Amino acid sequence: MGKDKKVEQITDMEVDFTQWFTDVCIKAELVDYSGIKGLFIMRPYGYAIWENIQKYLDARFKELGHENVAMPLLIPESLLQKEKDHVEGFAPECAWVTMGGSEELPERLCVRPTSETLFCDHWSHVVHSWRDLPMKYNQWCSVLRWEKTTRPFLRGREFLWQEGHTIHATEKEAREETLQMLEVYADCCEKMLAMPVIRGNKTEKEKFAGAVNTYTIECMMHDHKALQSGTSHYFGTGFTQAFNITFTDKENKLCYPHQTSWGLSTRVIGGIIMTHGDNSGLVLPPNIAPIQVIVVPVAQHKEGVIEKASELLDTLKSSGIRARMDDSDNSMGWKCSQWEMKGVPLRIEIGPRDIENGVCMAVRRDNGEKVEVQLAELTDRVPQLLDTVQQGLFDKAKNNLDSHIFEAHSLEEAKKLQEEHGGFIKTMWCGDVACEERMKDEAGMSSRCIPFAQEDLGGVCPICGRPAKKMIYWGVAY
Amino acid sequence: MGKDKKVEQITDMEVDFTQWFTDVCIKAELVDYSGIKGLFIMRPYGYAIWENIQKYLDARFKELGHENVAMPLLIPESLLQKEKDHVEGFAPECAWVTMGGSEELPERLCVRPTSETLFCDHWSHVVHSWRDLPMKYNQWCSVLRWEKTTRPFLRGREFLWQEGHTIHATEKEAREETLQMLEVYADCCEKMLAMPVIRGNKTEKEKFAGAVNTYTIECMMHDHKALQSGTSHYFGTGFTQAFNITFTDKENKLCYPHQTSWGLSTRVIGGIIMTHGDNSGLVLPPNIAPIQVIVVPVAQHKEGVIEKASELLDTLKSSGIRARMDDSDNSMGWKCSQWEMKGVPLRIEIGPRDIENGVCMAVRRDNGEKVEVQLAELTDRVPQLLDTVQQGLFDKAKNNLDSHIFEAHSLEEAKKLQEEHGGFIKTMWCGDVACEERMKDEAGMSSRCIPFAQEDLGGVCPICGRPAKKMIYWGVAY
Repeated sequence: MGKDKKVEQITDMEVDFTQWFTDVCIKAELVDYSGIKGLFIMRPYGYAIWENIQKYLDARFKELGHENVAMPLLIPESLLQKEKDHVEGFAPECAWVTMGGSEELPERLCVRPTSETLFCDHWSHVVHSWRDLPMKYNQWCSVLRWEKTTRPFLRGREFLWQEGHTIHATEKEAREETLQMLEVYADCCEKMLAMPVIRGNKTEKEKFAGAVNTYTIECMMHDHKALQSGTSHYFGTGFTQAFNITFTDKENKLCYPHQTSWGLSTRVIGGIIMTHGDNSGLVLPPNIAPIQVIVVPVAQHKEGVIEKASELLDTLKSSGIRARMDDSDNSMGWKCSQWEMKGVPLRIEIGPRDIENGVCMAVRRDNGEKVEVQLAELTDRVPQLLDTVQQGLFDKAKNNLDSHIFEAHSLEEAKKLQEEHGGFIKTMWCGDVACEERMKDEAGMSSRCIPFAQEDLGGVCPICGRPAKKMIYWGVAY
Repeated sequence: MGKDKKVEQITDMEVDFTQWFTDVCIKAELVDYSGIKGLFIMRPYGYAIWENIQKYLDARFKELGHENVAMPLLIPESLLQKEKDHVEGFAPECAWVTMGGSEELPERLCVRPTSETLFCDHWSHVVHSWRDLPMKYNQWCSVLRWEKTTRPFLRGREFLWQEGHTIHATEKEAREETLQMLEVYADCCEKMLAMPVIRGNKTEKEKFAGAVNTYTIECMMHDHKALQSGTSHYFGTGFTQAFNITFTDKENKLCYPHQTSWGLSTRVIGGIIMTHGDNSGLVLPPNIAPIQVIVVPVAQHKEGVIEKASELLDTLKSSGIRARMDDSDNSMGWKCSQWEMKGVPLRIEIGPRDIENGVCMAVRRDNGEKVEVQLAELTDRVPQLLDTVQQGLFDKAKNNLDSHIFEAHSLEEAKKLQEEHGGFIKTMWCGDVACEERMKDEAGMSSRCIPFAQEDLGGVCPICGRPAKKMIYWGVAY
């Protein structure tokens, strides 16, 4: 299985990780560039990954009592301005519609960067009594944020996501919702995408514009940089007061509901690429792979080979495995490189000799291991192998994460550790934004989160030397 | 089951059909108005209908080999202008993004009114050989068309739809695709939405901007007006030439692929409302109803009633029926009106006397008929009843359609028939747009389609008196 031009086209990740990432996005046919900077085309293979993520999350959301809705694409400027912190955070990166047909609009309309204001405006029409609560809504859509630097999946001016928005009668219930949905995201990342996460609080500086608390799951990429992979926000009654959403409680008292929102985007596909990929291209976790098994007939012109391979394909499909066959007239080498590039977890080769012996050869994408499988045991062994690959990818990523968390007791030490090893640097922190900014300016690291799993590293902020009660993770982030 | 305020809130359809329609949209909680004219909020109940339509269509599309993708939301003005007829048709109703953050954009970007230009631009990057064809893509998204008059579902400045876009090596294949997808839409309307359709060609005047042929399915509403419910277009090579999309065929000759597109939107939900609804509100076909059966316990405070009703609910659910129970503390009358307003096909009442007798009472939404059902036969009888309701709605709509197609042999007769009965007026037609315009100006009717099922009504155009080979349907349309 010699290398061919397909593989030679991608840059080695050790040489230039950024270029390697872009190469994989293009050569694995996940995205294409459009004529507008930062607006990407999700090609069928990339979109199919997103559809699998959608399927998992949508089912989880519905099980937990959420309903899907569709809010408008546009937000009048006056509506966006109703919550002060929110508009300050988002206005600088809004795209504005100013013309409808040939007429100038009386008020500019921004293409939604996020939809809190739209949900609140709607709720102000329909919420009256405690009987109307909770309202637990979600929408699948795209949003626009006019960013300066853009990269496929990681930072787009347009990206696809889901945004959940809920209101509740009590703070307790809303806070539970916020954490519950973070847990759903953590499950999605860990169980489906094989990306281990660190759960925690964002700092005041890093939290969502208008939120009381922002919770995050942070993942570590192959190059030891951090990727924020999903966030969940508790808003208190800030928006509901600004939008005058009130309900009468059981004692007939007028109250403001407590609000949450939470979002996960196609950014996690960037996470999958950078967590599992290698110099042969994409490596997809079986649970999320559009094609879990690619069947490649060997010496396919020989009598009976295609027939037997088709039979094998049908057997796999009817046991619920997402399988496909490549019986194109491309060379064996080309086919292997092609499906490696596309990250298909398992390649099954079957040729005349194998057929004689009642076996086939399964090749794992994650480590290249070849396993002979009895055809009679196919429907037992292939799901087992896929589970093994899934677990193997998770373990490898978990090992990468665990071995790249370093403890520091001074800013200099933190900086040095980051420069030498990358990863998360954990320190105590006094809670002062000034220290957070010094870490950014002097060590190039942003705060990633204040992990839920706290440790006592000594009680002193390594930046200012004042007492510190919280442990925080720092890192260089995408 | 006395009427209550909920029902009194909607206008009688005989008094004011337009107001009745709006009332149903709001009171059945399908939509809410946003702060921007023509941009509607799809509430959970309305969106759940759309999700059921999506589920049906998406499965059909995929069975037929289509793949989902996501194209950008925005189109550069220069890209929109590449196909002359297309830009003429759409530019007048484009919404334009002119600012990104605080900066004016070098080129205005239109929010997609449809995405032919985006698909073509992408294909021009990725199509090279006959091996790359066909490309059969679809996307689920919303589009913007800055219309003057707007109404929920029927005409929005934003609406949700799917747009399929395909390119093929040959005209034959592309034409087959165009008609095949029209047939998928016809199936969706007839089998899922219980809306009988007339299939046909659009005239030159009414076809899609840039298309060679536009095919349509036309439905008839309760008020005997027409609703265009889905269209499928054959483009020839007009766009592929304009965008310079070429492939080398098997003989190594450079060719332009043949293109199609096809779309169906949330407009059909307006169609469902106006086809089946009545003065008690919405009437939903069971195949598309988010709730197929509402279980209402009678005298629910009495011992054992709620328990038995819950048991019944579980039985229905586990046999795959979309069922829900209303055990709220609202009155029986309120509940009945509420679920009638929401168009739930079957209400099942169960009280102490029923439980004693091992029965429950099923009430059909479409005709109010009450049927006693043995609890032991529940899982056989309820699906049968739902099928009966589905068929009953289709038959009623088919009867409405068939009894409102009238034959005319002069413009005056056509006009008189429309004024007296509404519906479709069928005549011969010479094919001249001047005659089409006269029919519009003098009789207020647009051409709906040149039906596939042609009849010979005499060979003379009733408008100009010249020879005519085609039969055409005229009507007043939404």
